[in-house]
Amino acid sequence: MTKLPTQAQDFSEWYNSLVSLAELSQHSPVKGCMIIKPYGYAIWENIQRELDRRIKEAGVQNAYFPLFIPQSFLTKEKDHVKGFAPECAVVTHGGGQELAEPLVVRPTSETIMYDAFSGWVQSYRDLPLLINQWANVVRWEMRTRPFLRTTEFLWQEGHTAHATQKEAEVEVMRALTMYTDFDRDFLALPVLTGKKSPKETFAGAVYTTTTEALAKDGKVIQAGTSHLLGQTFAKAFNIKFQDENGENQYVWQTSWGLSTRIIGTIIVCHGDDKGLVLPPRVAPYQVVLVPIYKTEEDKEAVLSALEKLSSNLKTAGVRVHLDARETVTPGFKFNEWELKGVPVRVDVGPRDLANGEAICARRDTSEKMAVKIEDLPVFIVKLLDLIHDSMLLKAQKNLAEHIFEADNVEDMVKILDEKGGLVKAPWAGTEDDERKMQEKTKATIRIVSEEKWPETRKCIFTGKETDTVVYFARAY
Amino acid sequence: MTKLPTQAQDFSEWYNSLVSLAELSQHSPVKGCMIIKPYGYAIWENIQRELDRRIKEAGVQNAYFPLFIPQSFLTKEKDHVKGFAPECAVVTHGGGQELAEPLVVRPTSETIMYDAFSGWVQSYRDLPLLINQWANVVRWEMRTRPFLRTTEFLWQEGHTAHATQKEAEVEVMRALTMYTDFDRDFLALPVLTGKKSPKETFAGAVYTTTTEALAKDGKVIQAGTSHLLGQTFAKAFNIKFQDENGENQYVWQTSWGLSTRIIGTIIVCHGDDKGLVLPPRVAPYQVVLVPIYKTEEDKEAVLSALEKLSSNLKTAGVRVHLDARETVTPGFKFNEWELKGVPVRVDVGPRDLANGEAICARRDTSEKMAVKIEDLPVFIVKLLDLIHDSMLLKAQKNLAEHIFEADNVEDMVKILDEKGGLVKAPWAGTEDDERKMQEKTKATIRIVSEEKWPETRKCIFTGKETDTVVYFARAY
Repeated sequence: MTKLPTQAQDFSEWYNSLVSLAELSQHSPVKGCMIIKPYGYAIWENIQRELDRRIKEAGVQNAYFPLFIPQSFLTKEKDHVKGFAPECAVVTHGGGQELAEPLVVRPTSETIMYDAFSGWVQSYRDLPLLINQWANVVRWEMRTRPFLRTTEFLWQEGHTAHATQKEAEVEVMRALTMYTDFDRDFLALPVLTGKKSPKETFAGAVYTTTTEALAKDGKVIQAGTSHLLGQTFAKAFNIKFQDENGENQYVWQTSWGLSTRIIGTIIVCHGDDKGLVLPPRVAPYQVVLVPIYKTEEDKEAVLSALEKLSSNLKTAGVRVHLDARETVTPGFKFNEWELKGVPVRVDVGPRDLANGEAICARRDTSEKMAVKIEDLPVFIVKLLDLIHDSMLLKAQKNLAEHIFEADNVEDMVKILDEKGGLVKAPWAGTEDDERKMQEKTKATIRIVSEEKWPETRKCIFTGKETDTVVYFARAY
Repeated sequence: MTKLPTQAQDFSEWYNSLVSLAELSQHSPVKGCMIIKPYGYAIWENIQRELDRRIKEAGVQNAYFPLFIPQSFLTKEKDHVKGFAPECAVVTHGGGQELAEPLVVRPTSETIMYDAFSGWVQSYRDLPLLINQWANVVRWEMRTRPFLRTTEFLWQEGHTAHATQKEAEVEVMRALTMYTDFDRDFLALPVLTGKKSPKETFAGAVYTTTTEALAKDGKVIQAGTSHLLGQTFAKAFNIKFQDENGENQYVWQTSWGLSTRIIGTIIVCHGDDKGLVLPPRVAPYQVVLVPIYKTEEDKEAVLSALEKLSSNLKTAGVRVHLDARETVTPGFKFNEWELKGVPVRVDVGPRDLANGEAICARRDTSEKMAVKIEDLPVFIVKLLDLIHDSMLLKAQKNLAEHIFEADNVEDMVKILDEKGGLVKAPWAGTEDDERKMQEKTKATIRIVSEEKWPETRKCIFTGKETDTVVYFARAY
């Protein structure tokens, strides 16, 4: 097996090697499109199951809209087309003939969905309209990296329509909170939340809210986003309803999404020099059982004990895998499951068996514990929760320790160069100033905070007095 | 609400109206692509959940491969490209530039998957390789109908590789049996199974096996199919393994799939003049509760009883919906849920409440029963199983009554004109004869049976002696 470089040696190479060595994905012959291998896809299925549950709990219904969008639809909302047209894959031929109108492969589904919504919404009684779609989307990217930025990716996109601006804003926050809770409670990921700056706002939105996580290399990564679309698309696609007074009004809309990029986020936020460290709730296997033996007699006894344990763990609701391969050594298995980030490994050899014990190894801390085999199912259920809490705490501590403050550009660059993380700063610049800052510092505004400076300060770039707090960071 | 025509008046119009009135799907502005609305998509989600469980139970792992296939890949297997090239949607531009090599939107994923498989399989220890994908695929169709034939559709495609032909054949049968069991036990659909004739065989396969169901109009509809691919693709994509003796061999492959067409199958096989009749296990709502009241006082009492009942039914694992809308009458609700095929409706009015009873109405038989409210959760769990069995029995009876025999073309046409169904006949024709038969009779060979005639008979078309049994039918 090729060796994994350390994170300190080359974080980017560490990431690329890990994705490949842990069999999460591989490059495909189609530029920028990856193959998601079974182990990587099992992570996505766990994400889907849990997030889908939370989406449905909020009363949102799943539906499915066409992959193809007529090119004319995309152009109906001017900011939207400006943002997405350069990234589109275009179908020009179908069934052996040139098409009268080219079709765009959806980069996102606002336009094709909202054309239908205009027929679905007639009266205030049809509102709120709460729709979600699990789908593949395509955005032509020049530089791609598995999970983090791929031409085709998988995601869910929520699209809602409301009677008032206020209700739409409540929905934007509900979706953002859903993502924050999901990241924290399922992925052990603390995130910072807030609004995006104008430059980073979704094409066509009034404003974009975001969840931002901190990677181990000090860079910041955007996870789910939730947008207030206002009435921009409603006007472009004529989505009107008759209100309680019989008057026609445009609806207020939101959209929100989370993609397979979240798998990249898990990797860069939790991974270490030995490989993946998977949060227990999302791990395809939560526990791997490794038998250790030399004689045939020991083999039978150990395997039989592990089969029983495996069955008991399954009954306790644990996702367990008994690695009974005979073609590789236990040492090889230890390395492989460590690389693949399985939260708990349980080894049993003849001596352990004689003591009625097994050795439990935690992936996150490398801690080893001898535990009575009969106690293991209860022990492991608790241990998995403990590992979750402990991974979350560690990530929260790391995030807290990487939030800095600066009031001049030089200090900010120094902090980002030396420590990474996020730098709080006063800001009163324009979209153009933001671009200049990025050229100069390679950092972008990740979040415009709800928080205000108690007394106005000088903008870090323009020197203008402002009470606006922003967080700068270098980002994925 | 527009009225549904009866099946006898115009089956095709009945189908199209029903799909739209029951809010299963609607046409999209993209020719041949449908929008699957929440009620239709919830049926698909139930199908996915159950079939995915069965697929995983067989040790098959899910993965995800790119939407786009380089055009050159498709041409590597000559029969495959001949079958699919005319139906392809082609991406010629990406990111604002013309592509060096056009990309085909996957019509099926053999070629893109098997290119990767050639790297995944090295040794006999890597076999069997059992992969499944849930995805959207695109086949450019001239005449489309919602669910039954659409340009884009959703499906699962299983792809496996084995060390021997025998193991591959066992897998073909395993998948076919999985579909047959799923159709019977989850959808209350009896199917005929067998091999396809050469004309109907999957492009690139050695043979295709199929499940065929009988629609209410006497036409036959193909549900899932399972193909033996042999070594054709293995040779085209160089998928080799070292066997136990250290010799290099090509793998033996299978592929098998089931698509959103199955929703159309449910509609045409179970539906009646009043609308959809959904088998209980796939129904988004298994029970709908309708409150009946006139006074505010009655309303409170009835709604409170139904809320409690709804909660008890949920606890019993029943998918239940309390229709508390105040803008429509109970009569309107009865019609709507009948049209939408909900297996059981429960009505409660003040008089029922006084008796501690509710009225239970079966969708499949229109039977009504007064049941003690406290007994309802247990009663309904049993009733749902009973409805499943009863729907299956009815469909089995219908299928059995529509299998005929003919030994000349004239008789066959007469049977199909008058009664529909399937006609058993002796067959010794070529692929070309099959085409001529279709022109003459509008019927195709649905199945080449495992069964043989006890003594040879004259082929219905060529007059040659044969012991081959085939089933002809007019088909969707």
